[in-house]
Amino acid sequence: MNAMTYFHKHHNHQFSQRIIRMNRYVSDLQSQIVNEIVNLGFEYPHSEEWIYQNGNGGGQSLRFEDHDLIERGGVNVSCVQGQLTPRMFESMRHHHKTLADMHPTDQDIFSATGISLVLHPKNPHVPTVHANFRLFEAEVGASQCWWFGGGADLTPYLLYPADAKHFHQTYYKAMEFNRPGLYQKYKQWCDQYFWLSHRAEARGVGGIFFDDLCTEQGFEEDFSFVRTMGDVFIESYLPIVKRHLLKDFTDAEKKWQDFRHSRYVEFNLLHDRGTKFGLLSQGRTDSILMSMPKVASWSQEPSVAEISRAAELQNVLKLPQNWIT
Amino acid sequence: MNAMTYFHKHHNHQFSQRIIRMNRYVSDLQSQIVNEIVNLGFEYPHSEEWIYQNGNGGGQSLRFEDHDLIERGGVNVSCVQGQLTPRMFESMRHHHKTLADMHPTDQDIFSATGISLVLHPKNPHVPTVHANFRLFEAEVGASQCWWFGGGADLTPYLLYPADAKHFHQTYYKAMEFNRPGLYQKYKQWCDQYFWLSHRAEARGVGGIFFDDLCTEQGFEEDFSFVRTMGDVFIESYLPIVKRHLLKDFTDAEKKWQDFRHSRYVEFNLLHDRGTKFGLLSQGRTDSILMSMPKVASWSQEPSVAEISRAAELQNVLKLPQNWIT
Repeated sequence: MNAMTYFHKHHNHQFSQRIIRMNRYVSDLQSQIVNEIVNLGFEYPHSEEWIYQNGNGGGQSLRFEDHDLIERGGVNVSCVQGQLTPRMFESMRHHHKTLADMHPTDQDIFSATGISLVLHPKNPHVPTVHANFRLFEAEVGASQCWWFGGGADLTPYLLYPADAKHFHQTYYKAMEFNRPGLYQKYKQWCDQYFWLSHRAEARGVGGIFFDDLCTEQGFEEDFSFVRTMGDVFIESYLPIVKRHLLKDFTDAEKKWQDFRHSRYVEFNLLHDRGTKFGLLSQGRTDSILMSMPKVASWSQEPSVAEISRAAELQNVLKLPQNWIT
Repeated sequence: MNAMTYFHKHHNHQFSQRIIRMNRYVSDLQSQIVNEIVNLGFEYPHSEEWIYQNGNGGGQSLRFEDHDLIERGGVNVSCVQGQLTPRMFESMRHHHKTLADMHPTDQDIFSATGISLVLHPKNPHVPTVHANFRLFEAEVGASQCWWFGGGADLTPYLLYPADAKHFHQTYYKAMEFNRPGLYQKYKQWCDQYFWLSHRAEARGVGGIFFDDLCTEQGFEEDFSFVRTMGDVFIESYLPIVKRHLLKDFTDAEKKWQDFRHSRYVEFNLLHDRGTKFGLLSQGRTDSILMSMPKVASWSQEPSVAEISRAAELQNVLKLPQNWIT
């Protein structure tokens, strides 16, 4: 399956070589990730190709619904191009320094490609994972700019500290080799980004987060660095899945997972910039909201004293930890 | 129980007579509404008084959790006062004409009191209801302004057209007597406000919605008009509850209700101004998010062909109806 097919048929504006190369990379990563799940003995997700109705391009969603491993989720690739409206420009200008000095016209264009995945496992011993790697380009008047963004973060329901350590250390090792010192910055950015201020708690145990990545080293170096992070995603998550996959779970643990899902929903709908930008740019609602869990419960808070590893989770959510040393 | 107690103990800035009178009215309405539910033979909700930590005042939440009639919900009254931060000022300025020409300082104060209720019944034959009546005051520099806002709207899961007609006609009759022509305006405002653009559907069958109400007729007239709407709330909803309360329901109907709950969650967290303003002004998260249903499901869309009155609901959500003629 090649995610390029949906837009090669439909473009009437040229995607840049940068966008095309990033799209090839994330399409390949999408296949690899899904193959790893299938290789564990689970069925292939449901594939949907879609066309971006408000411009050029489209995407491929590989969706999990009532799957034996993944209760709900998806591994999506998209590559779209359209008008950069003044409203979108304003909403991005605050976050992207390369836009700060540009002057929008009514003929500006954006292009974006990336992979976005959320996996909500059925078994509450297996953490939810989210990852996202994307390239954004804007043509504003006669100027052009681009930047990478993305990250990966883990949301356990029952705390196994070894999982959080493994996840963080995987990114730490990959990044320290490439760009020493950056892990710490991106780890803190992740902790800040996924903070639910109205609950005074983190969404999960974090990971890495970055945006507006466009360094003086140029596109090749930045693209290579982003691939480094994408390349270790499988290594960061699959061993955790394998560890817990066959564990039995109780009704109380499942209820606790559904209760915690409500915080995930609150974060994504109240705070997440990607969700807001996607819905604002009239993106595909079903693909954007594949990040929602199957069931979220705003029931009375379960008593964590009766659920092993739940109180431990609550403690680390209140104060983000250092998982490296 | 008197909701005034929590702030009489704690104020160090004077609440205005306007705020105090509106607070008395909504506290009384809160008691009446809850008494009606109790008089149907159900237990009294859980009462919580709380203090507003970022200013003066507080509120009383009457919360329903796993109640025999109301699966989740609350009838809340609050009366708070605090610093009108520049961020709050900017977020309100777009919607309130009385703020448009004012110049914020760092010593501005807001006061607000109101009743806010959401009732999510257990039985999917009984619609969810939301209502809210509030008075807001701002002291910006040497200037003062106030306005009323509020409304009431109905969210059925299985469509009984007679319910939607009764609900709308109750407000129509009350408002036409007082201010002819206004029902139509507020009905349309409601349809616009509760429109989920990313789903291209309404949250429910609507009702009335208004904001920024501060007419040339002055406070007494506007206050009287707001009381007219508050006074008919019980008449607008209770007969609907009584009609369906004892109906049996199937698993498929319950699942459909949980599925539709996810749209309710999406609206409240993505679009609702009250929710955003509440969380921005560091309001009480538990009270603000009492609007969440107990369970929301983002499962695959159930087949409405197999659920009586579900397809009929979908049709009216796609195109808001005239329920008066």
